[in-house]
Order: sequence, then structure tokens, then C-alpha cells
Amino acid sequence: MKVCLIGSGNLATQLGMALYEKGHPIVQVWSRTAENAVELAMRLNSQYTNDISLINYESDIYIISVTDKAIEQVLSWRSWGSKLVVHTSGSTPMELLSPYCENFGVFYPFQTFSKAKKIDFDQIPICLEANTPQNLEILRVLAQSISNNIQLINSEQRQQIHLAAVFTCNFVNHLYSIGEGLLREKGIGFDILKPLILETAAKIVDHSPKSVQTGPAIRNDKDIINKHLALLENQPDLQVLYQQISDRIIQTIN
Amino acid sequence: MKVCLIGSGNLATQLGMALYEKGHPIVQVWSRTAENAVELAMRLNSQYTNDISLINYESDIYIISVTDKAIEQVLSWRSWGSKLVVHTSGSTPMELLSPYCENFGVFYPFQTFSKAKKIDFDQIPICLEANTPQNLEILRVLAQSISNNIQLINSEQRQQIHLAAVFTCNFVNHLYSIGEGLLREKGIGFDILKPLILETAAKIVDHSPKSVQTGPAIRNDKDIINKHLALLENQPDLQVLYQQISDRIIQTIN
Repeated sequence: MKVCLIGSGNLATQLGMALYEKGHPIVQVWSRTAENAVELAMRLNSQYTNDISLINYESDIYIISVTDKAIEQVLSWRSWGSKLVVHTSGSTPMELLSPYCENFGVFYPFQTFSKAKKIDFDQIPICLEANTPQNLEILRVLAQSISNNIQLINSEQRQQIHLAAVFTCNFVNHLYSIGEGLLREKGIGFDILKPLILETAAKIVDHSPKSVQTGPAIRNDKDIINKHLALLENQPDLQVLYQQISDRIIQTIN
Repeated sequence: MKVCLIGSGNLATQLGMALYEKGHPIVQVWSRTAENAVELAMRLNSQYTNDISLINYESDIYIISVTDKAIEQVLSWRSWGSKLVVHTSGSTPMELLSPYCENFGVFYPFQTFSKAKKIDFDQIPICLEANTPQNLEILRVLAQSISNNIQLINSEQRQQIHLAAVFTCNFVNHLYSIGEGLLREKGIGFDILKPLILETAAKIVDHSPKSVQTGPAIRNDKDIINKHLALLENQPDLQVLYQQISDRIIQTIN
């Protein structure tokens, strides 16, 4: 399928590369900033523009991959005719596209993306939604060309998936940061935590996380919990966080 | 080295198996509960007892791997002569052993253990501390027989490492649980989160977590944050947790 990529962020970059490598021509790349458009277009052997009115009608699908609040603005800047238009957002309902397009849907690759780290799309869940069965079928064929993990997910579910991702990816990464900071205080490098972090993630492949909870809180080991709270006495916000998550874990015991 | 294993929990089980497989005879296994002692002793081709006075002096090292609060009790139940005695606890100072033993130290494999999931010790950091350079050398030789990652860590540092582990392993796993629960509410299986969880962990192998933080909070995207808080309106404790961690992430922006 001929693709027009609207946006040049982390997701647009990784998705564009995955599609391009599977043989889908990227006809045009649009970005608000000309340099970003140029940079990504060069990687994708594509034309580029930072003027939305210069997007042509040669593509089969128009993938809008911009920040959530910019989606509607971008939609409103031009007419889309009968072209198939999708967004890639977790928290934006599909119906936002309805006033602007005849044929529309959502193409949401569920992963954390950075520009620098290349992502293998093979196992990434791609969450699809479309306004007609025909459009869903088009999206399914496109998604299957880059991933073996296609999911039909409505807007309400997708929003919840995105919320779950904030806890299990964004907040988890912040906890990694907290660990790094705690070690730094005592002159210990972050490396020592890496095997633990990888094993903790690997465990949930075959186990429900609730069933493999370890640590002082799940043993209701007040001695250790109090020692840890004392260690955090100069960081009251970390103390509160420690107490709060420990309390939640203790509540799950019964 | 001939090993006496005092304890039969997750860590004792995995450590005993690793030592046994590298050719160290496990002379005796002690556990408070006879069945646990029998079960582990059978895996380790060892004698077993649930009577601490029946532990003999034939081993070269006595590894106490019981809950933190039981360590001193176990130490006090018998005399240890000049035998080398270590504990495997993150949060217990080495000096706790001093009144009871002549030769002592700490042998702390820094990983999360369960009985069922076999652990490859190869890359696991083993944190060592001993009361003399000679004892440290003995521990180092033993540790190197099962791992390539030996760390000299004093009691204060080890305590901090354990605290960091609570954030990056125990609390992280609880966030995985929260994600699982959020998806269940909308009839979505946990599988969809697995690629994201694994990628989030894999990222920190080559990047400082602070440098790869993603999500609405690091973009200070108030629209999405407010949407998510609204989705959590029936779970006020999750709302508080969401707000609190988001605020911490937002504070790191500048």
C-alpha cells in the first residue's frame, strides 16, 4: 500500500521504517518542522513537506501520527475526500475522525518507541479499529505485513490499554530511575540492578504478576519496611510512595 | 567446598542448586519444617534435619538463608566454632554475626527468586562482605564458581541495594499487577502488555532510565493525564498513585 505519513515523532519514525522495509512505498512525509520531515523522508526514500496543503492524493492510506491534541487540527487543515485516514493514538477515540473523513480508523502499535532504538515489529500488538468492515480489512492486511499480533480493539478498550501502559511502562521506568538515584547516593553503579530488572520482567511472560509478587510487603515484613522507611527519611516523597505501594501489596495478601 | 545450607526458601533453593551443580557437595540441609528440609535435600542429594543441634562440623561453609528476623535466632541456637558462617540477606548488617562466630561474612546473590523458576546464576551480581581478607577470599572463590559478576559491597551499601530492589523489582511487579487489573476490567487479556513490559526493561540495558522516560507526564500532557485520572475515578487509591508518580516525572523535566 502507498503510505502518507503525517508526523515525524518516535512512533511515526519506527512505524514508517517498518512499513518501508516491508515494501510499502512511503509517498510523502509531513512534519510541522521542515528539518524533521526531511530527516525522516531521507530514511524512507520519500518526498517531504511541512505544508499540509501540499499532501497529494496518491497514497492509499494517510497515517496521522502526531500528539493527541494536534490530531484534530491536522484533520481540519484540509479535505481528505474518500481517502482512508487513521490515527495512531492510544487515548483518542476513533470518532474524532468522523466529521473530517469518509473512511477512517485507528492503527495503534502498542509499544514504547524512541527514535534511536530500532524496534522489531514482529510481536508488537497492533490494535485496529475502523468505521467499516471493509476499512478494517484493509488495515488488517497492512498490519499483518509488519506484525503477527493483530488485535481488534474498540476506542474504550484502547483508552484503557493506554492507561495500563502508563503504569506498566512509563511509571515502571520511573521506578527504575528511582533505583538508579538510590544507588548513586551510595556510589553504586546502575549495572548491578540490570539482571534483577530483566528477570522481573521476564517472569511475567509465564506468570500472572500477582502470583509472583516478592519482597517485604507481600511477606508483611514490618521490620524491613520500617528500615526502608528510615533510610528514606530525607526523601519524604519517596517515603510516601514506598508506604503507599507497600500498603497496596499488603492489601492483596488476603 | 562442602556446604551446609540453613534454610529452604526461594533463595536457599536456587543457591543450593547452583552450588550443587557446580560440584560443591551439600552436606546438610536444615529447615524448621521437616518436609521442606526433605524436599530440598532430595534435590541436592544431601542429608537433612530440622534440628539445628544436629548440624555437624563437616562443612566448610554454613550458609544461613532464612527470613531476616530468624537469622539471629538461628545463630544463637548453637555454637559455630571457627567455621565460616554467612547470611544471604540484603538488609541485615554483617556485624549481626559477630557475637556468634569467629569467621563470618555475607553472601548476597542479588536477584529475585522463586522456587519454581530455575535461575541461571551466571550474570547475577553476588555481593560479598567478610570479617577478614582471608574469609573474603574464600567467599570470592565460592562465588566465582557460580557467577561472573562478583561485587564487594559493605553492609550500608547492601542495605541501599536492597531498597533499590524493592522499587525496581517488587514495586515494578505490583505495577504490572495494576496493569493486569485495569485490562481485566475491560475484558482484555494481560498478553497484550507483555511486549511493552519486556521492551521497557530491555531499554535500560543500554540507557539510563531517566534518558528514556516516555509517556504523558514527561511531555507534561495535561489532557491525557486528566483523561486518565477521570478513568480512575472509581479507584481513588490508583488515582492518587497516578497523580503522585506523574508529578514526580514532571518535576524531572527541568
